[in-house]
Amino acid sequence: MTMKKSFAVLGGLLFSLGLTAQSDSLMMKKISDDILTRGAAYENLRFLCKKVGPRLSGSAGGAKAVTETARMMREMGADTVYLQECMVPKWERGEKEKAELIMANGKRMPLNIAALGNSEGTPSTGIRAEVLEVRNFDELEQMKDKVKGKIVFYNYPMNPTFVRTFMAYGDAGRYRGQGPSRAAKYGAIGVIVRSLASNPDDFPHTGAMNYNDSFPKIPAVAISTNDADKLSKALMLRMSPSQVYIKTNCGMKGEVLSHNVVGEIRGSEFPDEILTVGGHIDSWDLAEGAHDDGAGCVQSMEVIRVFKALGIRPKRTIRAVMFQNEENGLRGGTKYAELAKKDGKKYLFALESDAGGFTPRSLGISGMADQKAKAFEWSRLFEPYDVKLADGGGGADIGPLRPLGTVLAGLSPDSQRYFDIHHAATDVFEAVSRRELHLGAVVMSQLMWLVSEYGL
Amino acid sequence: MTMKKSFAVLGGLLFSLGLTAQSDSLMMKKISDDILTRGAAYENLRFLCKKVGPRLSGSAGGAKAVTETARMMREMGADTVYLQECMVPKWERGEKEKAELIMANGKRMPLNIAALGNSEGTPSTGIRAEVLEVRNFDELEQMKDKVKGKIVFYNYPMNPTFVRTFMAYGDAGRYRGQGPSRAAKYGAIGVIVRSLASNPDDFPHTGAMNYNDSFPKIPAVAISTNDADKLSKALMLRMSPSQVYIKTNCGMKGEVLSHNVVGEIRGSEFPDEILTVGGHIDSWDLAEGAHDDGAGCVQSMEVIRVFKALGIRPKRTIRAVMFQNEENGLRGGTKYAELAKKDGKKYLFALESDAGGFTPRSLGISGMADQKAKAFEWSRLFEPYDVKLADGGGGADIGPLRPLGTVLAGLSPDSQRYFDIHHAATDVFEAVSRRELHLGAVVMSQLMWLVSEYGL
Repeated sequence: MTMKKSFAVLGGLLFSLGLTAQSDSLMMKKISDDILTRGAAYENLRFLCKKVGPRLSGSAGGAKAVTETARMMREMGADTVYLQECMVPKWERGEKEKAELIMANGKRMPLNIAALGNSEGTPSTGIRAEVLEVRNFDELEQMKDKVKGKIVFYNYPMNPTFVRTFMAYGDAGRYRGQGPSRAAKYGAIGVIVRSLASNPDDFPHTGAMNYNDSFPKIPAVAISTNDADKLSKALMLRMSPSQVYIKTNCGMKGEVLSHNVVGEIRGSEFPDEILTVGGHIDSWDLAEGAHDDGAGCVQSMEVIRVFKALGIRPKRTIRAVMFQNEENGLRGGTKYAELAKKDGKKYLFALESDAGGFTPRSLGISGMADQKAKAFEWSRLFEPYDVKLADGGGGADIGPLRPLGTVLAGLSPDSQRYFDIHHAATDVFEAVSRRELHLGAVVMSQLMWLVSEYGL
Repeated sequence: MTMKKSFAVLGGLLFSLGLTAQSDSLMMKKISDDILTRGAAYENLRFLCKKVGPRLSGSAGGAKAVTETARMMREMGADTVYLQECMVPKWERGEKEKAELIMANGKRMPLNIAALGNSEGTPSTGIRAEVLEVRNFDELEQMKDKVKGKIVFYNYPMNPTFVRTFMAYGDAGRYRGQGPSRAAKYGAIGVIVRSLASNPDDFPHTGAMNYNDSFPKIPAVAISTNDADKLSKALMLRMSPSQVYIKTNCGMKGEVLSHNVVGEIRGSEFPDEILTVGGHIDSWDLAEGAHDDGAGCVQSMEVIRVFKALGIRPKRTIRAVMFQNEENGLRGGTKYAELAKKDGKKYLFALESDAGGFTPRSLGISGMADQKAKAFEWSRLFEPYDVKLADGGGGADIGPLRPLGTVLAGLSPDSQRYFDIHHAATDVFEAVSRRELHLGAVVMSQLMWLVSEYGL
């Protein structure tokens, strides 16, 4: 399409929208042009990934990320930048975790594994036991009499036929979350979970698991999808006794003080109406946390940057929030809502970006019918950005605001590549496209601007 | 979203679509499930990229690609596979092209350049001249008196504010296509064009240029965006006489015989109604041509594979076509239409994929109003795949079918990353996501099935 035609398209849009919408459309284009030309989100992400690195809550990297994002928002000219204290669980992986398949002839084959977040480690000598593979919980129940003393291997892949990969993640995620305790219930001494990855690779994809206090807290690891297939094949060939040796050195080390980081532009007309935009600043220890969720953090800070750069004074207060501890506790989001309940302000709207820094496809909105209807009137304004306003959205960190009547929204980017790298060592800066990341920041900033201008 | 909810969504869709649409929807899901589970497009692309490699028309790789894609379609069980002869221009880059910036103090700085496709080389001693930078054709016209004997440097970047990158490509592409002859008109002895790349990088992005026979055929190269900035800065600092040395060894070597490759499944009811689906098998010599357009080729072949794998017998004849010479001549597409005019068959529909193997966003359709209206009735069927049917579409290779009244369609994938790698050495297999590629093949196969079943 030529440039001429693009101007014609814009002209046509302006003509059909009416006067208010025309000026809205022009402001949205100003925001877009500024971010696509001079956006800082990509370079801020490079810093977070390469100079700060992994940012698990309670770790040194986690603390550094708090300091550095506060500095960034100060430098962007936020009216105020402050920290909100919250206690976070301190989980540590420890060094030199490993696993090996021990074949009938005594030969050992290393397996790519990583302890699941929140899990307890093995004894210092490791654990060694026969492996029982199950494809799902039904099979576990059928074989429950054989579980005792064994290592249970959940080999449930993400379903490739789900077009939207988050559906496959939700479906397969049960095995990571509940699998360890459900196996411990029948006497398993350890658990191996097939990584939640949408393509075969050699990397373990970690993530949080949750112990059920009624059963022993047995060690639990994720295994790479390629090694899951290898292990399954070895078991099928009945190279019995097929044993696996696992050694992990992880565990919970109590709680430590950490922080949410908040950067604010004070509303000119309704300063006590709070519009929150955020991502979570913590990441898994194995990864740079580029897509999960460095992307959401730098996009949220970009809202502050572009408002300041363009001299936009919002009518309502805009807060960019770097939430703490989404990955293994949600303490930051919980604390934010707890403070919100007490400060007498109105938490009108919250938008989260925590699904990767990919091309935005839609902005999903949850709230009362009339609030959603008002938002959906802006749909045409987003057409030039190839983004839809959709029904239903939010995010883990802003979820606790729901009881306050806050309208919740979430950025839905393209989901096809997210689970290639999610929670694995491959979630690095290089996996992020500058334009894709910045386009997400564009539509987030535009939506924040519309809500700041018109309320909901 | 949980699995339960997804079934509810599908159930709701089936209920609201009516009975015919229900069976259509189920067939489309069968096609999707098969490709997303067992699709061969990705592995076929790996072969094309890694075992065949660059495939410029008239080159050895180009010939090998013809043989190998014919073999693939035979192995997929196409009813017939045949070649269509066409003459193609044979352009060769030659070895050891290079360029250097020669600074006032005699120091030389190498520049990352690549001759533009179809351009003639320099004399064997190279060319050396002062550089005149222009930001656009207007500046060229203003400075036309200074052009004589110089090397003109078009430093016109792709406009980052265009959300759809193909608009920026069309806009900036003029300088690559017409720039050399417009500078030659005023006596320039060579041309450097800023690469058409949407992000700064160190790779020259080549592509076709076209000489205007009224003026001398001067050498023309693309320069990497980073080096374009470096060169511009050096010129601004007036390190005069700022000269550049360029040596290229390329040129047209006449014409040679080449081929389109056609794989066909014969229609069961209307075998003389031809539905074409294709991509172009040639690529630039610098690249593996993974996105451009290995992706379109393997997606088109995937239509054959999935029909055969599922035992679908189309009512109309389906032809997957690997078009020859899209990049620097369009001889394959031209020949295909020329043969179509003579064979007495009805060329009802043609779909092209030549915009990269990224997540599909829409299928654009061009034709008579009633034909488009019929196609748009299928819109709801594509909703579960997050793909729209849009007005306007086609492709370079199928364009010559337009005079025959063929309905033309094009796959529009997400465009944000395409010009990171387009026509550069970075367009390699590793830049392609399996799921994104296969989703494109899914919606192409589904559309081909609908047209084969219902006509237009």
